[in-house]
Amino acid sequence: MPNEQKISRAVVSRLPKYYRYLGEAHDQGIKRTSSKKLSEIMNITASQIRQDLNNFGSFGLQGYGYDTELLYNEIGKILGLDKKHKLILIGCGKIGQALLKYEYFTSRGFTFEAAFDKSEDLIGTTVNGVKIHDVSELADYLSTHHINIVALTIPKGHIGNTVDIINKSSVQGVWNFINMDIEFREGIKVENVHLMDSLMTLSYKIDEDEIINRYNVTTKGEAIK
Amino acid sequence: MPNEQKISRAVVSRLPKYYRYLGEAHDQGIKRTSSKKLSEIMNITASQIRQDLNNFGSFGLQGYGYDTELLYNEIGKILGLDKKHKLILIGCGKIGQALLKYEYFTSRGFTFEAAFDKSEDLIGTTVNGVKIHDVSELADYLSTHHINIVALTIPKGHIGNTVDIINKSSVQGVWNFINMDIEFREGIKVENVHLMDSLMTLSYKIDEDEIINRYNVTTKGEAIK
Repeated sequence: MPNEQKISRAVVSRLPKYYRYLGEAHDQGIKRTSSKKLSEIMNITASQIRQDLNNFGSFGLQGYGYDTELLYNEIGKILGLDKKHKLILIGCGKIGQALLKYEYFTSRGFTFEAAFDKSEDLIGTTVNGVKIHDVSELADYLSTHHINIVALTIPKGHIGNTVDIINKSSVQGVWNFINMDIEFREGIKVENVHLMDSLMTLSYKIDEDEIINRYNVTTKGEAIK
Repeated sequence: MPNEQKISRAVVSRLPKYYRYLGEAHDQGIKRTSSKKLSEIMNITASQIRQDLNNFGSFGLQGYGYDTELLYNEIGKILGLDKKHKLILIGCGKIGQALLKYEYFTSRGFTFEAAFDKSEDLIGTTVNGVKIHDVSELADYLSTHHINIVALTIPKGHIGNTVDIINKSSVQGVWNFINMDIEFREGIKVENVHLMDSLMTLSYKIDEDEIINRYNVTTKGEAIK
């Protein structure tokens, strides 16, 4: 099967949401569910849900619906949650330290093996059991440890040669909290958490009606002059 | 103009990115740009860029392109950055405190006026000049202060009556960091930052080729049995 046949990003973005809702249903002892029931609690149409899940085969049975636990586990596997992921953190400011302390990650198989910073005050200390190393040891560390994911939480102006070091490593993914889009070598997947972008999007949503009036936006996406 | 005529969410999600790139170009002294030039640095096709921007009218001139500063300011206005937004923070753990310290927010007009927590150790202290109040004062505070946006950074199990209090206030938007989808009353816009979802999406991307093979995914989104 050629690699070009990717699942659309919109479907992928909904998978964690399915996983979350199915997990909650399972915790509540609900053994069977349906696209209709999921639709009611998830704000996604039932047909969209069926279509999304059908990408990965037939998880449901006509007239029965879905076995909650089975579907939960199956989506977990699609999201790679049956595997162990080894992470390192680069940048141990407040956001970085928050990530080190976030209990959900470990319980889902994402474990921070080490952290890196350049601050003398932080180097040698541990946060939630994770040791903070001098960032000058980063290249050495990555060449001697098998790390799957790098979480990047350094301030925008302090990236230095971090990208080069990551590109030369066998890292598979970068979880980027720096408020800029960074290009890594082919084969390294990137997921961005751009907080400022997210806040600006909220600001837009709040004023959307007014903006649409101001710019005479039509449904066709063309401006009336 | 009826309110149903919304800009697609995909376009909205690209607006902060345009703003970011135009700001960088402007900082570099670039006075003129074009959809073609933006396309090269942004990984978005030139026609997509023209189409996105045309939603809001004609910012460019045929043969000239865009005036960088003008377009930057105009997109800033669309994102509400010409206004002052008053925020409060509920939940002063690591992520909450990171948000209070994030310098970009203030410089873009998003100012934290107060923070709330239930921890005796935190109440009465200040973080980056923002005072932390007892969360029991939240309803009172919201009824006597005009707040635009609430940043929600409490742990999932500690929400209590926070949603009710927000629903009864005049708050316009919620920036939700809690790893669940919360429904607020009509008129309150929500932007979610679901860190666990983001990490699972990265995990999916890393293994995508293997997953596509495993589930026999076809481009039509149907499974081959």
